[in-house]
Amino acid sequence: MAAFTNEEYADIMMAYGRADGNAREARRIYEERFPNKRLPSFSSRGVARPKEPLNSTAGHKPPLCISTTFNFDPPATNDSLGSLLGETLFGEMPTLEIDGKQYAQSIAICRYLGRKYGISGATPEEDLLIDQIVDFINDIRIKAAVVHYEEDEALKEKKFKDFSVVYPTLLKKLDSIIADNNGHLALGKLTWGDFVLTGILYYLKQMLRMPDLEEKYVNIKKVVDKVVAIPQVKAYVDTAPEDEF
Amino acid sequence: MAAFTNEEYADIMMAYGRADGNAREARRIYEERFPNKRLPSFSSRGVARPKEPLNSTAGHKPPLCISTTFNFDPPATNDSLGSLLGETLFGEMPTLEIDGKQYAQSIAICRYLGRKYGISGATPEEDLLIDQIVDFINDIRIKAAVVHYEEDEALKEKKFKDFSVVYPTLLKKLDSIIADNNGHLALGKLTWGDFVLTGILYYLKQMLRMPDLEEKYVNIKKVVDKVVAIPQVKAYVDTAPEDEF
Repeated sequence: MAAFTNEEYADIMMAYGRADGNAREARRIYEERFPNKRLPSFSSRGVARPKEPLNSTAGHKPPLCISTTFNFDPPATNDSLGSLLGETLFGEMPTLEIDGKQYAQSIAICRYLGRKYGISGATPEEDLLIDQIVDFINDIRIKAAVVHYEEDEALKEKKFKDFSVVYPTLLKKLDSIIADNNGHLALGKLTWGDFVLTGILYYLKQMLRMPDLEEKYVNIKKVVDKVVAIPQVKAYVDTAPEDEF
Repeated sequence: MAAFTNEEYADIMMAYGRADGNAREARRIYEERFPNKRLPSFSSRGVARPKEPLNSTAGHKPPLCISTTFNFDPPATNDSLGSLLGETLFGEMPTLEIDGKQYAQSIAICRYLGRKYGISGATPEEDLLIDQIVDFINDIRIKAAVVHYEEDEALKEKKFKDFSVVYPTLLKKLDSIIADNNGHLALGKLTWGDFVLTGILYYLKQMLRMPDLEEKYVNIKKVVDKVVAIPQVKAYVDTAPEDEF
């Protein structure tokens, strides 16, 4: 099992739309409508959307690379986790199938594809430069997610207020690193890390309640603009269905 | 700035001990006692403790590799983050200095050192096998941390109860993967991933309130036993100061 079918993706996205982007509600809707179907992990738009960012090979199943699975939120029940564990390596999406073998973990997959497609480092030190900034971004995402997925509304607002004091410093740091790297995350050129940031950003903006994030952090915008301008990515984005969540 | 001095480490550990392992309280104690010193990120024992797991080179400053920084908890104030950002790459420990240049992010550092010391994969696919299981473990850690660092005690207990339904399935999955890999995380042999698990486990047990974790998951124990039996690691562990937190 490498991925959901296109029909399943469409249904998953519809459920997201109906749930107004609420992952738990989307899960309930999808489960109610398709009681016999495998449940996706239903955690971010990245999870349920196939992307083809790095390269396109005819007949090759598109990897979920530009996306990032938001696998922070534990599945609602142990049963649903058990069900997913039966079909995916760790009970979560995305997965990548190589020669009939299933691999998992979005960032690990992006790193792998970056190496395969020649946009990783030339030395261990260069790879470390990419890895560290990707992990830094992922840390920001996780911190934001802890706030965003707090179910107690009053507490969520308190946590958001507390985090609002901290995250601008983190984003400013990220922005300055990009400025030092010629509009990229690392090495002064395109790497797989740029794809990770692009994949995360839409979701991060929602969690940080910052629709104008790119206006405030112009270097972050540069990375995304460069990735989306890559012909294969542009072709995908231009033909991708409208986001519904 | 590559690391704290040994004296500073001792003071940091003392603060942890006094705070009974509470990171925020430890930060307050340390700040009060040493108002002019740089504050460590104070998030896990790994953060403030130098380890020398992979190899030992005379005169070479030990990397913080077996440790894992718990950098989930945002610094208490923007000021303290700003202060740390002035001295560390991303405002958090551990860092690693190579040829005078500072690198960060614990798992990225472990991956780098794994490559340098010959305990990474031989192919991109093998590296993906290590990366994915390390990220799976890190996901478990993050999920546990969200519960553990909830400040509202009543809510913390509720979250712990909810998570208690899920995490045994995750640990069982991890245990079974190790069983399939000859007592290692991946590739059926020692890799840098085994060090990451060893470094995380003590802390994970605390967060999961499972002092008997290794008894319940005997394959997880095998990994740790093998790492700690490595002569260089054993020599370090035997001479390391007693944990005080």
